[in-house]
Amino acid sequence: LEKLYIIKIGGSIIDDEIKLSAFLKDFASIEEKKILVHGGGKLATQLAMQMNVPQQMIEGRRITDSETLKIVTMVYAGYINKNIVAQLQSFGCNALGLSGADGNVIQAHKREHHLIDYGLVGDIDEINSDFIKILLDRNITIVFAPITHDKKGGLLNTNADTITQEMGKALSNYFETEMIYSFEKEGVLLDASNEESVIDKLDIKTYNTLKEKELIFAGMIPKLDNAFLALKNGVSKVVIGKAEKLKDLICGKAGTQIVND
Amino acid sequence: LEKLYIIKIGGSIIDDEIKLSAFLKDFASIEEKKILVHGGGKLATQLAMQMNVPQQMIEGRRITDSETLKIVTMVYAGYINKNIVAQLQSFGCNALGLSGADGNVIQAHKREHHLIDYGLVGDIDEINSDFIKILLDRNITIVFAPITHDKKGGLLNTNADTITQEMGKALSNYFETEMIYSFEKEGVLLDASNEESVIDKLDIKTYNTLKEKELIFAGMIPKLDNAFLALKNGVSKVVIGKAEKLKDLICGKAGTQIVND
Repeated sequence: LEKLYIIKIGGSIIDDEIKLSAFLKDFASIEEKKILVHGGGKLATQLAMQMNVPQQMIEGRRITDSETLKIVTMVYAGYINKNIVAQLQSFGCNALGLSGADGNVIQAHKREHHLIDYGLVGDIDEINSDFIKILLDRNITIVFAPITHDKKGGLLNTNADTITQEMGKALSNYFETEMIYSFEKEGVLLDASNEESVIDKLDIKTYNTLKEKELIFAGMIPKLDNAFLALKNGVSKVVIGKAEKLKDLICGKAGTQIVND
Repeated sequence: LEKLYIIKIGGSIIDDEIKLSAFLKDFASIEEKKILVHGGGKLATQLAMQMNVPQQMIEGRRITDSETLKIVTMVYAGYINKNIVAQLQSFGCNALGLSGADGNVIQAHKREHHLIDYGLVGDIDEINSDFIKILLDRNITIVFAPITHDKKGGLLNTNADTITQEMGKALSNYFETEMIYSFEKEGVLLDASNEESVIDKLDIKTYNTLKEKELIFAGMIPKLDNAFLALKNGVSKVVIGKAEKLKDLICGKAGTQIVND
């Protein structure tokens, strides 16, 4: 099988023009087939303030009312996505930006939760991997914004880590798929305050122990759950680490590698 | 050659949820291959006010400074484009939204003008018609936002009428291409205040006479210039008329047909 990198870029690097640009240059230089999934950064929160739309976060998730959906659609699928695509084009990478509605690539439904109403937040039902493969086979690099749709005309705000994991699962039928979650930290840290305490390899047993001891911080848990799930579902490798070290993450010189046993 | 409709939707209908939805339903029901190019509506101006970004218009064109480019990228390529795509998907039309940066489909350069600095406004250099044809051949309906790129990492605000015309020109090598400019008016009117004074057929001679007599209003002139240019460049038919009558525009029961002689 041909190799495919699915790389998530998130955290504060999205808001840092210079760091983001350096990351995109590194990303563009990857010769294998590749997909980029980006998060939102702080811009949506800033715009919401300017537009006087109050924002509510529960456990790191944005409660998405209709005005907030409008904002995230503008910021994620518009501003961030198109600027990333234009920059990749300038680095000679033929990028194409998509939301889940485009080409019906990611179909979702509004999240049902017995306690919390997350609003217009999507849980993924289906990935149109046939179409994604056609684009990849033409050497197009897809850049996904974390917005999906419900096939009934509605857009849904969707977690970018989850999109990355579902994408890995769906595409590992066609490719030897490697996932990289890149953000502002060096990797999974034993001590959250010490960037040098990176765990090189993390297996599910150690992960569960660390979770019990509450040594894994909140934002990391869904990322790691997604990572282990991806490995279970056909993805061959998952690495978590610092966006600025993308090249080292790829060749195993930095970050935390997630392993299944 | 197979038939292709390139339909521009612009004017106030973009801001009218109910009318836009009815239009998209009609559009989705077109069985032939089709492309939709949308304009911006008033939403960008509204958002600019909320964000305290002053807007300057010269001869109906928006002067695009970097803050305004951010706004139009969010509104056109984000909010409007993705909502149109999601709605078309709900009507069973496999739509895919693109800016000119995506797949390098529309390359442009910053407009040079000896008197006016339009700012980050693009004039089109090249359409990547091969890739557009590949998508159309897979029965994908492309929805273009009026944003292009310069291949150097910069996005550019670009007139949607011009995109429509350039698209028609580029694709008439592959398809029997028919262009429809739809908006809030019945068509080209002999008397701008009388919606019943629609000119059924307009040739270049009559157009020039009407222009001399100043009977053609300002916003219509670039539209018509684009229409005549498209016919000269291989497009087989151009119709201008009311978006609410899309089906009638297609079968020749409404609007103004532009003819070359």
